[in-house]
Amino acid sequence: MSEPLKIAVAGLGTVGAGTLQLLSEQAELLSLRAGRPLQVTAVSARNRGRDRGVDLSPFAWYDDAVAMARDADADVVVELIGGSDGAAKAVCESAFAAGRHVVTANKALLAIHGTGLARAAESAGVMLAWEAAVAGGIPVIRSLREGLAGNRIDRLQGILNGTCNYILTTMRETGREFDDVLDEAQHLGYAEADPSFDIDGVDAAHKLALLSALAFGAEIDFEGVYVEGIRKIAAMDIQYAGELGYRIKLLGIAEVNQDGIHQRVHPAMVPADAPIAAIEGVFNGVVAHGDFVGMTVLEGRGAGAGPTASAVVGDLMDIACGRRAPTFGISAEALQKIPSLPMDRHVGPYYVRLMVIDKPGVFADIAATLRDCEISLESVLQRSRAPGDVVPVVLTTHEASEASMQRAIDEIERIEAVREPPNMIRIERGSVD
Amino acid sequence: MSEPLKIAVAGLGTVGAGTLQLLSEQAELLSLRAGRPLQVTAVSARNRGRDRGVDLSPFAWYDDAVAMARDADADVVVELIGGSDGAAKAVCESAFAAGRHVVTANKALLAIHGTGLARAAESAGVMLAWEAAVAGGIPVIRSLREGLAGNRIDRLQGILNGTCNYILTTMRETGREFDDVLDEAQHLGYAEADPSFDIDGVDAAHKLALLSALAFGAEIDFEGVYVEGIRKIAAMDIQYAGELGYRIKLLGIAEVNQDGIHQRVHPAMVPADAPIAAIEGVFNGVVAHGDFVGMTVLEGRGAGAGPTASAVVGDLMDIACGRRAPTFGISAEALQKIPSLPMDRHVGPYYVRLMVIDKPGVFADIAATLRDCEISLESVLQRSRAPGDVVPVVLTTHEASEASMQRAIDEIERIEAVREPPNMIRIERGSVD
Repeated sequence: MSEPLKIAVAGLGTVGAGTLQLLSEQAELLSLRAGRPLQVTAVSARNRGRDRGVDLSPFAWYDDAVAMARDADADVVVELIGGSDGAAKAVCESAFAAGRHVVTANKALLAIHGTGLARAAESAGVMLAWEAAVAGGIPVIRSLREGLAGNRIDRLQGILNGTCNYILTTMRETGREFDDVLDEAQHLGYAEADPSFDIDGVDAAHKLALLSALAFGAEIDFEGVYVEGIRKIAAMDIQYAGELGYRIKLLGIAEVNQDGIHQRVHPAMVPADAPIAAIEGVFNGVVAHGDFVGMTVLEGRGAGAGPTASAVVGDLMDIACGRRAPTFGISAEALQKIPSLPMDRHVGPYYVRLMVIDKPGVFADIAATLRDCEISLESVLQRSRAPGDVVPVVLTTHEASEASMQRAIDEIERIEAVREPPNMIRIERGSVD
Repeated sequence: MSEPLKIAVAGLGTVGAGTLQLLSEQAELLSLRAGRPLQVTAVSARNRGRDRGVDLSPFAWYDDAVAMARDADADVVVELIGGSDGAAKAVCESAFAAGRHVVTANKALLAIHGTGLARAAESAGVMLAWEAAVAGGIPVIRSLREGLAGNRIDRLQGILNGTCNYILTTMRETGREFDDVLDEAQHLGYAEADPSFDIDGVDAAHKLALLSALAFGAEIDFEGVYVEGIRKIAAMDIQYAGELGYRIKLLGIAEVNQDGIHQRVHPAMVPADAPIAAIEGVFNGVVAHGDFVGMTVLEGRGAGAGPTASAVVGDLMDIACGRRAPTFGISAEALQKIPSLPMDRHVGPYYVRLMVIDKPGVFADIAATLRDCEISLESVLQRSRAPGDVVPVVLTTHEASEASMQRAIDEIERIEAVREPPNMIRIERGSVD
């Protein structure tokens, strides 16, 4: 039997405890597959006494995770502390300085500091592995980095946040409003007490920035991601989407062309029969397009102790077997600085829901505004009649530029009969073929 | 720049030519990603003169692929000859004997000789890589072998043959009959002139045997796969499936339990809203269940020059980067001989379509037969009335054993009013969660 791979785990929350549990339950199987045992030697967390359902007595305990990363008898440090700065970053740096590999589930850290950390790992000659940082239940990082290594990837779409997908799926299935479903999701543990990180799209944007760096061989540009969350989606919008043959998803979309990279996270209407529309509930999914492979779709759980621990251990197994890959698919020195394109360069069809006073002539004003902005209508729906009252009017447009659309919406909002800010949702192709 | 990875390609059909094209078009990108060039040094095919749209002049030519595998200046031999014996097998053995890695797209070869070839590769200390042998457009081999390496996989389902999936999808979309759609598929190049290998399920069975060996750490047992093709599916069955909330797919299903492995390929009804039901047309898909990760779904093109070349090059990139993995996930010596369970051990719900004379009392005879076989009905549909004529009657059952079901069908067939052999299609859960 070969030497064990020695592992130090920093952070013992749900994922940390799940990782220890997996490594213990599957020890024999992992050892058989890797040809050597995977052995946890040290752990660190804020509170030593807390009951995590895992026996910590076999492991060296460190109060200070940074000291553990530097001093522990370990080949690899698993960083599960979280947060984009502070201890998590210091743990990685300390591990690299000591010549140890790092496995992390920390998308916030990588989205902000990933390029620098990849350089540091490369200089130290060690792996920075991060399968668990994006959609733990989907082996998407190694699929893009290794499985599709023969392809130039030019476009990807992802459902990257399980909380949002659960809320949107439940709204569609039950007809209930956003606040009501969010409240339920919090009770079920699918949403945090402070849900803004998820529902405002920040978490999805972190993951998108990482996937796009990997797919396009670019330096991470999290600041360049356009972000819009799902708070504005009403039950009515979900119902109209259904009538129009769409489902509403919070999508992360990354595309590259000769001008730059377009990265955006926003609610989008996708055709109901598209592969990405079928990814429902807490599941995540990624659709990638490569020049030789065509479209590949990957789906699985996005979060939770089991799926995330599975991803962490997948990375540990690579390290145990000596399988190495550059952090973002190519040498960190070779990552290109590709400019991020601003959102107003986007072109596509749009859905707009207006709440207007039901009286003659209103629609003529709206249509004239759209004409003046050179936007052509594809359809108009006004289901209910209630003369003198406020009713929804739904428009869909042909391809239009985001800049024109924003101008049109500003002007429509000024029309006296329009009583609420228009709700605009972009329409996307559901595939990337 | 490091030394190039030197590659010899045996077999220059569609996939071989596609692989040369990919290696040439993406040379710079591959070299950047691998940190070394991938260089084709030698090729072999039956006909040197044929125009393949690729310039062969830079490569050493061998009339004899086995000699090339032995003698060429190459680190790795790509076997794209096909066939379960003969030259393909000899090429692999010759390559291993000369200490060269092998990359193959040959599922028939591996399904029959994979365990032995894996042992030979292991003895030679080289890789036998086969991502291209199953669903080229999906990085499913490395996902199971590496991405999900922390999991015990207990069940997988796959749509593993694009020809069958195209035919079934087109039948559903157009209401046309099998023969008609097969004919069209042959014209479009989605089906071979002799389509039996695909439509009788043999190709899917080859792939299922490989996936199940990999997922369960078992020796390959292709003979143990129950196989049934799609010739028996009528337009009427597809229509009834729709009415009952199902789609018909040719599924490969592998499950392991304490008694053994159950491997089966047959048409199945899956819930129309299940992830696997959404995999349509020429696309393939695999749904796997792991104890920590839960359900993972992977979808992509199953065949064609581009997707298959993408898979071949993914394996070449692994070899170029020194990433090694055992052929079937664990050392070939550790693969277990797990018995394959016979089909009559299967238990599940069933759909049965009968063509019966529309007259009083027929249904009582059928119901009595089912009762005698201890099969309980879930639903009965008789849409059309035509007293004295032959009409379809459709039954669905609750869970029943295959053995009872086969007995019931034999007896029902003997009822005088039943005018055609009953058409039985198994109903499957569409997910593996």
